[in-house]
Amino acid sequence: MTRVTFMDRRPAFAGGGDSPRAMLDQCLDRIAKRDGEVRAFVTVNADGARAAADAATARYRAGKPLSPIDGMPVALKDIFETVDMPTTFGSPIFKDWRGGRDSAVAFALRQAGAVLIGKTVTTEFAASFAGPTRNPHDLERTPGGSSSGSAAAVGDGMVPVAIGSQVVGSVLRPASFCGVIGLKPTYGALNKGGICDAYSQNCVGTLSNSLADAYAVCHEIAMRVGGDPGFAPFRGGPEPALPRAPLTLGVLETGGWHMADAEAKRQFMALLARLIGEGTQIVDRRASARIERLEHAIVDARDVSSRINAWEGLWPFAELQQRHGDQFSESYRERMRIAASMTPDDYVAMLTRRDAMRAAYDELAGQVDAVVTLSAPGPAPQGLKSTGNPVFNAVATALRVPAISLPLLQVDGMPVGFQLIGFAGGEAALSAYAQYFIDLK
Amino acid sequence: MTRVTFMDRRPAFAGGGDSPRAMLDQCLDRIAKRDGEVRAFVTVNADGARAAADAATARYRAGKPLSPIDGMPVALKDIFETVDMPTTFGSPIFKDWRGGRDSAVAFALRQAGAVLIGKTVTTEFAASFAGPTRNPHDLERTPGGSSSGSAAAVGDGMVPVAIGSQVVGSVLRPASFCGVIGLKPTYGALNKGGICDAYSQNCVGTLSNSLADAYAVCHEIAMRVGGDPGFAPFRGGPEPALPRAPLTLGVLETGGWHMADAEAKRQFMALLARLIGEGTQIVDRRASARIERLEHAIVDARDVSSRINAWEGLWPFAELQQRHGDQFSESYRERMRIAASMTPDDYVAMLTRRDAMRAAYDELAGQVDAVVTLSAPGPAPQGLKSTGNPVFNAVATALRVPAISLPLLQVDGMPVGFQLIGFAGGEAALSAYAQYFIDLK
Repeated sequence: MTRVTFMDRRPAFAGGGDSPRAMLDQCLDRIAKRDGEVRAFVTVNADGARAAADAATARYRAGKPLSPIDGMPVALKDIFETVDMPTTFGSPIFKDWRGGRDSAVAFALRQAGAVLIGKTVTTEFAASFAGPTRNPHDLERTPGGSSSGSAAAVGDGMVPVAIGSQVVGSVLRPASFCGVIGLKPTYGALNKGGICDAYSQNCVGTLSNSLADAYAVCHEIAMRVGGDPGFAPFRGGPEPALPRAPLTLGVLETGGWHMADAEAKRQFMALLARLIGEGTQIVDRRASARIERLEHAIVDARDVSSRINAWEGLWPFAELQQRHGDQFSESYRERMRIAASMTPDDYVAMLTRRDAMRAAYDELAGQVDAVVTLSAPGPAPQGLKSTGNPVFNAVATALRVPAISLPLLQVDGMPVGFQLIGFAGGEAALSAYAQYFIDLK
Repeated sequence: MTRVTFMDRRPAFAGGGDSPRAMLDQCLDRIAKRDGEVRAFVTVNADGARAAADAATARYRAGKPLSPIDGMPVALKDIFETVDMPTTFGSPIFKDWRGGRDSAVAFALRQAGAVLIGKTVTTEFAASFAGPTRNPHDLERTPGGSSSGSAAAVGDGMVPVAIGSQVVGSVLRPASFCGVIGLKPTYGALNKGGICDAYSQNCVGTLSNSLADAYAVCHEIAMRVGGDPGFAPFRGGPEPALPRAPLTLGVLETGGWHMADAEAKRQFMALLARLIGEGTQIVDRRASARIERLEHAIVDARDVSSRINAWEGLWPFAELQQRHGDQFSESYRERMRIAASMTPDDYVAMLTRRDAMRAAYDELAGQVDAVVTLSAPGPAPQGLKSTGNPVFNAVATALRVPAISLPLLQVDGMPVGFQLIGFAGGEAALSAYAQYFIDLK
């Protein structure tokens, strides 16, 4: 699998030895060669991308790139509205639908000169029913979801960066399964305007093959459209921090450790053993009462998230269901039944439980530099009907803290992610530890 | 001016002595008679409303109303998307535009059986450029904005309730100018999905002639679509609380007291003097160090809000401006220039200042039952070019606490509002004090 990266290649653009157009053509070639099987893309806008890449190429030659990501080929999960491509939200209701505008992310990327190469497969409304995408490492396995096409496109070498989003585990799980870096910033750090929902856990994130690419993209978006209204924009960039060994790491086992693959756990522990050898202190629930309390607080993070998401989906999804109910999947109808059974008081009770999780996590601030766990219970499962279990991802999402999945483990020849979880607004520190792990490997 | 109310009329619907259809016909008659001059409506959907009112009438006769607001004629500010009417956002860019869906509020109201009679004039994107609406009490004066048409329609007796929204002073100011009750609930209490923006101060509110109508509407919306994702839905209803005299009231003079009309201030103080006679304790900045600290903290609430709103408008408005810049008003372009001059750090600095205001206000919890001030510096100004000064409204909006404007004062034959400000989630308590003031009058 060819790893495609952008920031390390960019210095050659000014001299003309390389160019955004040359890079784009390689991406388009790879898509032409492989996407018939991988099925990462819903739409490829080759003509539009070529025009954008040519313009970027000219800007570099003139010494006037618009930004550090000028000319970067980027794919967008097909829940982000684009003025020049349809947006389907993974639902037959929106087949060929055009909203007539750019989502915040699409607008910011274009302003920065990025080349929007196409739209990638998402599960239905980024939630339930799996799409056609296959895992580039094994076509008989799921790429994960809901950012299925974004992870597969980056994992297959079709693009250096793809945009995804995560409400439970939709960036980090597919990143883990497809062997790429998944970055889910602090909640609200990137403006999610112009997607299909406004879930209070929905976070724009990136799939990439390098931290430098991920951080540059997040930084450029935040500079142009900020984050969600009322939340601090991403401020971890423009570049990831220099590698730094953590002094103290917390290990999180909830939820999912009991069901995780034995070999994945063995490799995870072996990596931590190397850190101990380098002087890092590792604490888990047996060593720290605070972590023990946190593990208890988050034990039902996934159920709490599910009920929160169901309620928050009342609009727009109950409205859509009224007009297009027969085009909803059964799993989406089940979500709506859960929502219909809830009252405002039930929802507030779930928010209160989520707040308690966050309070328990805040107790770790200053005690550990970051928290680590697996990104998924094991390698991508066989088959395409399920996108796999998000149990390892629900926690960081509910906590609204930044998380990074690094492709550091391997089971049966398939990638498994190592997950680093930080503190709100702490993307800079988290990148220092992440880069340390990458270099260690 | 005929006051139109719903909840007190509803008991006669079951027996057939009165009906939603009869009520609607009176509303439509009033609109036909007056709206040529008042210009409150952008769109009146008479046929759709009649069909909805007939259905509601039949449900009452069958003893099966959908909700307490079944059959209530409601007008919607023209920023709320409606599947059966265009939504213009007060901008020529969206002339005749149809989003093809119901906003959260429109969906919930229909589910509850309310009769959506039409769309009311809003200033451009609920922010800047004044619309054609006139004040029903004096056609040469502004109705206030941005919920101009909603306040004028209720103030003129065209509908019992209209939906508005407030980012700075867009519900309470027009309520004050048009002599109606304005309710801006706690931030996030009503789902604002399906409007043009997602400002972190934008709050759905109501214009009405009775507290009972306002609370019933808020309750029924919250039951069906909740509030904004991540925020507690409105839980102050279904009915306002019984009237109760406040034990202690705080008086707020910032901002605007120094520029307020002398007669409005005299009547305000006279009302408070009556309360003192009834045993209520009144504290202001001279009597309370906490209020003094709060007055200092909120002194630039309006400027802070303006910069927050400008930044949060980067998307969708910078994107829109790129495609339709010539159709933006100059004042909107100025907003976008402010936004373009800001960085993520500047925005976070503004959020920090807003948080400090909220912290200062939280210090009053348990010290006073509510805070009172004027709703506007005086009666509606002459002329239609400006919608008046929101200086008295910016504070409660920035604080994200509930506020009610009551039409208790009168200057030069024009209404002026008396403003009650409560604590987050405290709509029930606030209604008790509000009803006490109404009864006192």
